[in-house]
This record gives sequence, structure tokens and C-alpha cells, in this order.
Amino acid sequence: MDFDLARQLAQENGTKILLLVMDGLGGLPHPETGRTELETAYTPHLDIIARESACGFTVPVAPGITPGSGPGHLALFGYDPLVYNIGRGALEAVGIDFDLQPSDVAARGNFCTVDGDGRITDRRAGRISTERCTEIVAELRNIAVDGAQLFVEPVREHRFVLVLRGEGLSDRVSDTDPQAEGAIALPALATAPEGEATAALVNRFVEGSKAVLTDKHPANALLLRGFAKRPAWPSVTDVFKLRPAAVAHYPMYRGLARLVGMQALDVGPNLEDTVATLRENWDRFDYFFAHYKHTDTAGEDGDFGRKVAKFEEVDEHINALLALEPDVLMIAGDHSTPAIMAAHSWHPVPFMLRGKNTRADECKMFGETALLRGSLGTFPAKEALPLAMAHAGRLKKYGA
Amino acid sequence: MDFDLARQLAQENGTKILLLVMDGLGGLPHPETGRTELETAYTPHLDIIARESACGFTVPVAPGITPGSGPGHLALFGYDPLVYNIGRGALEAVGIDFDLQPSDVAARGNFCTVDGDGRITDRRAGRISTERCTEIVAELRNIAVDGAQLFVEPVREHRFVLVLRGEGLSDRVSDTDPQAEGAIALPALATAPEGEATAALVNRFVEGSKAVLTDKHPANALLLRGFAKRPAWPSVTDVFKLRPAAVAHYPMYRGLARLVGMQALDVGPNLEDTVATLRENWDRFDYFFAHYKHTDTAGEDGDFGRKVAKFEEVDEHINALLALEPDVLMIAGDHSTPAIMAAHSWHPVPFMLRGKNTRADECKMFGETALLRGSLGTFPAKEALPLAMAHAGRLKKYGA
Repeated sequence: MDFDLARQLAQENGTKILLLVMDGLGGLPHPETGRTELETAYTPHLDIIARESACGFTVPVAPGITPGSGPGHLALFGYDPLVYNIGRGALEAVGIDFDLQPSDVAARGNFCTVDGDGRITDRRAGRISTERCTEIVAELRNIAVDGAQLFVEPVREHRFVLVLRGEGLSDRVSDTDPQAEGAIALPALATAPEGEATAALVNRFVEGSKAVLTDKHPANALLLRGFAKRPAWPSVTDVFKLRPAAVAHYPMYRGLARLVGMQALDVGPNLEDTVATLRENWDRFDYFFAHYKHTDTAGEDGDFGRKVAKFEEVDEHINALLALEPDVLMIAGDHSTPAIMAAHSWHPVPFMLRGKNTRADECKMFGETALLRGSLGTFPAKEALPLAMAHAGRLKKYGA
Repeated sequence: MDFDLARQLAQENGTKILLLVMDGLGGLPHPETGRTELETAYTPHLDIIARESACGFTVPVAPGITPGSGPGHLALFGYDPLVYNIGRGALEAVGIDFDLQPSDVAARGNFCTVDGDGRITDRRAGRISTERCTEIVAELRNIAVDGAQLFVEPVREHRFVLVLRGEGLSDRVSDTDPQAEGAIALPALATAPEGEATAALVNRFVEGSKAVLTDKHPANALLLRGFAKRPAWPSVTDVFKLRPAAVAHYPMYRGLARLVGMQALDVGPNLEDTVATLRENWDRFDYFFAHYKHTDTAGEDGDFGRKVAKFEEVDEHINALLALEPDVLMIAGDHSTPAIMAAHSWHPVPFMLRGKNTRADECKMFGETALLRGSLGTFPAKEALPLAMAHAGRLKKYGA
């Protein structure tokens, strides 16, 4: 929905909307059974919801487009992911609670392994531990370059964030990460004239890192990508008149939620923690984004059986979510991650909306084939929130 | 898909995409049987493809819009037909291999029959033979007008092309064809100030044609329409990183394909020729547009039975197309041409996509009612190519 229209029509009314995102929800049929992960899983509670809900599929970005986590979530938050685009570096920085300023430039960093010729032999440095990453990052903080203040922050395993702070910095800088093993790290280059000074600063940091990393095998080099500034976006409260909270354990999703003005609540790693945090904060907000990561991880690992098991784990907690009595419950995914592809994909994502005034349909279970009989059809993910608001009585009539 | 986004995400990978367009594919139920042309035809090979494919319908332009051949094809090539619009004259000129220059203005010409009062009694001059058309055109070439060089080229039967070449020409000129029998040919008028000089040149050509045509009954007058310049569009290669070839026998479709940068291969009139040309050129390109005309002609003639027979003819060649082993095969139409309407129509057009990683659906045969159970739903035709590219692994992930 157009944001000007949303501002004009949105109204507050005390109802509660709960969005459960199962990351990487959509799947593809197992070649031996013809059934997807979701269709293989025993999910009696989700199937009851399917019978009670308006069902369908969301298209995260556009037909054929495989979304990253950013666009996939922004669409479910009501933001057109082709308009509200965020660079990887900014997302990574915001996701670790780094207080990124509007003029800062952030990049995602990876430690990697290089051979004697500088060729990359492992882009992830054997996935060193987060502790080891933190130790190495501490040494990198001693690097100084004229013209900017540098911040280096550990993220998880081999990943870190580099932030440059200073006057006249630009994010028009190319990646040093060639994204291929066997290749040599690239110099940072300006992608527009205003990026030249920043590219030079980045290259000086990389140069300075060599003395630090030479004895840190397997983390004996670093790669940078996704140079980006923090976007200044309208908030969910401004546009949709909702008080939004995020219940997400992983940093990136907390960061995404903050970018649209959600309060990121403290929450533990398990579904019990998610339910407990929702329950404790139920009276303080009226829109809740609850994030479940493990379906995506299993899909990315190509582990069909584990993805099935993760759906069954979610299913066991559905009644606890229903006990909160949300006026509208959306069961959704940010994108598909079919285990047989071991990657994100472009396929439309299963979606259910349970609330008052839903139209009946012939969808009797939560699975990709059954959902084709849903009353919502296949629709852009950015329309999910307006639809939920309508069912919650939060959208006024348009026109006389 | 937005072209900037396509340029950003498209990647080459050696896969082959084959688009088979059955012109005028979609139909409507026969009043006696309740089955469409496609549902009446015995098409066992297409039905097998339906079971193996992601199925659905394309909307060529927008709901309710009946497309001409140009918009219908451009959409399937990935071009938004509301943005990439071409005038009839330019299409006709490009379709006969005329080397239309960017500053030329082209019009489609029809010979027609007029009575003693100049009233049109047959807009197609009894469909004179192409040979007769060529003879008359040769005489029209002797007409000279001050201010522009004129080219007159025969097309087929009663149709020809007029091209004006010179300084400061404009296509803001109205048709002389009233598109109604019983009416009198109209003068060409400027539809904007910059069209005035060109309109005057056109009227001088028409005036000059009278002496030539007076003894050429039934081709004793001419009508002009669709004044247009050649558009300068980005190519399929530029936008989608594909090496595209067109396997089309009819001039208009070859012309359309060339406008988006496809190489129009030499091909004979029959399906065997289509298959042979595809096979001979299979290694030279990675995107093939194969055009089959006769389903549309039968539909336009209101010949339900012949359209059924033409589907059965295509069906017999499906295995030869599969033998080429395309990574993605699309079976599509540029628009519907229901025999009971004897005209193009706005109805969504049957579509199947066969390739890796398609989601299962309940569509068991290639027919309008069965396709409603397809997993693709009803979607804009311009999204078909991005979808095919996704299945071919030719689109990178969007966003972090």
C-alpha cells in the first residue's frame, strides 16, 4: 500500500496483530515423495489454522526474484522492497546494535584464508569461533587511517563489521570480496566520483590489516562487501499507526525491525522464549513480529529432514501463540528456502491469515499444494500488513 | 521486471531457454460442448508437459485489454507493453527487412476498392495476390514529392509499407484509413504542430497515387495508417544477458524480435522447419523464441475445428522440442483468439513452464479449466521471462 494512503486510512483501535515469520518457509517437492518439507511435516495445529484462515501465497519482491533476508522481511512489514533497499553493511551494523550514524559508512567483513600467492582458499576462514573473531577484531582496532574514525565490531564466527565515520564519506565503493575461491581480494574502487576518498581509506585499512592477520591462519586475510549508509525510512508507527515490537533472537532481524521503527525486545533463542517474551509484552504493543530462524538454516544446509522437524517444532507452539488471543495472526515466510536447492529461492511463500471476517476457502492443510485453493491467491508480500490491518478494523474506508 | 534491476541481477550460465508461442492460444468454450479449442484438441504430449510444469495464465497487457500482436509478444519478451509501444508502420517496415532509419517515418498501406464516389467497398481490395501488389507498388515508386525521399515496399496480398525519409519528419500524423467500408479515405492530418509538414507530404503522395491506381481495380485506391518511427529500445542481451534468436516465419514477428535485438533466423513455413532451425542453431544462442501462427489465423477466421486441428499439429512436434533438452521450456501465447469471437481477446492466456525446481500443482492437462489449478496463478506476461530466468539459474539474489 502506498504510504500516503496508509497514513490517511490507518486508525488505532486497540487490536493486536501477530506476525509469525518462519524464515525460508516455502519449499519444493522431495524427488522421492513429491511432497515439500511443509507437506511432509506432521503439523496438526497449523492445519487447523489453515482451515480457519484465509490462505494463499506471498510474492516477496517480484516473480522470479530471489530475495535476501532484508527485502523478504521489509515486504512483510509493508515496505516495498524495491523502494526500501538497504545495503548489507548497514544492515549488519544495525543488527549488532551498533549505533550507526546517518553519515557513517558500514561494510560487512569476512575473515578468510589465503595461500602464499594471496589466493582465497576459504572465504569463511574455516568458520572460526566468535571468540576468536572477537580477539582478532580487537587487534584490528589498533589500525588508524587519516581522514576517518574506524570501528571494527565482531558479529558471529568469521563475520565482522567495519564502520568508517568522518566528513564527506560515501558508500559508492565496490566490494573487495570477489565472492569466489581461487580469486585474489580486489582493491576497493569508487563506483562514482564521490566514492574515491572513501575507497582510498578502505584500502589503507586493508593494507594495515595485513600485519595483524599474517600470523592468524586460518583467518589470515579479510574481505569487505556491501558498503552502505543507514537509510532514513518512515516508521511503522508513522505510516500504519501501530506500536510495533520485534521478537527476534538473531541480530540481522532485530536490525531490520529497528530500521522500520520497531522496538527489538530481548528474547532467548528458543520458541519458549519467543512465547514468553510475547506474553510479557503483550499489553505494551499492538503489532508483534516474531521470527523463527531454524527453518531457513535447515533449508540452506539442504537438510530436508531437519526442515521438516523444525516445522513440527513450531507446530507444537502454535497453541501457545493462539492463547495470546491475537485479533489477527499471520503465519508467513520472508522467502522460500527449498532444501533440494539448499538456497533461498523465488518461489511464492505459504501464507495464512487468521482473524475475524475471513472468507472461507477449500484449503484444509498448511502445505504448498493445498494453499493453491486458498482465497487470497498469490499476492505481493507488501500487501500482507494492509490485509491484516483490514481484518483488525484498522483501516478506514477509502473515498465517499 | 524493471530493466535496471534485470541488468543488476541477470547472469550468464550456459543454460537454454525455449519459448514456444502459439499465436492466439487462448480460447472460449464451444457453446455445444462447453470445451474450448484447446480442451477439445487431443494433445497427449502437451498434457504430459502440463503434469510436469508449473502452470497458469499470463495477462498480456492488463485485465480487460485486448492486445495486438506487438504488445502480446513484447510482454512475453519481458518488455512492459505499456512502456514499449510501437506504431504499426514501423513494425510493418521492420518486419519486411526494410532498413528503417531512426529519422524515417513509416506507415502501413492497404490497397482497397472504391466506387465512383470514392466510397470504400472493400478495405482489402479483394486480397489481391502478392505478385499483383508488387507490380502496383513498382509503379507507385515513380511518385516523387518535394521534401522527402519515398520508399514503397510490398508486404503480402493487399498490404504494403510507405516510408518517408528526410529532414525534420514527424510521426504525429493521423491515419487516412477510416477503418470502415462505405466511408471515404481521410486526409492525413497533423496530430501535433510538428506533424504538419509530414502530413502535407503524405497527402501529396496520396494525390500522386490516384493517377497510378485509377485503372488497377480492385486495387484502385490506398489507405495509410500507423505512422511511426522506429523505436530505440534496449536489447534482450543488454537487459537480460541472453543471446536471443527468433525462429519465426512471418515478417511481423521477425520484425518484433529484431526490435528487441534478437537475431531472426531463416526458417521455412512448417513446424518441421521450426524444429530443424532450432536444432541447427541450438549451440549458437541461449534464448529461442519459436513462433507458430496458424492457431491465431484459425481463431480469427472463427474456425473452431481448424484451431483444434492446429493444436493437434503442434502437439505432434512437442517431443522434437523436448529432444533439444531446453533447461526451461515455456509454452505460451501472445493473446487469446477465441474462435467463437473470431478476434483477438483480453482473456488470460494458457502458460506452462517446464524446468528444474518447479513446484507441484494439480494441473493434469493443458486446457483453460485445468490450468486454473496451476501453481503460477494468473500473472503479467512480462514476468514470464524473469520466471524462466529464475528456473534457469540466471538471476542472482536481490538484496542482503
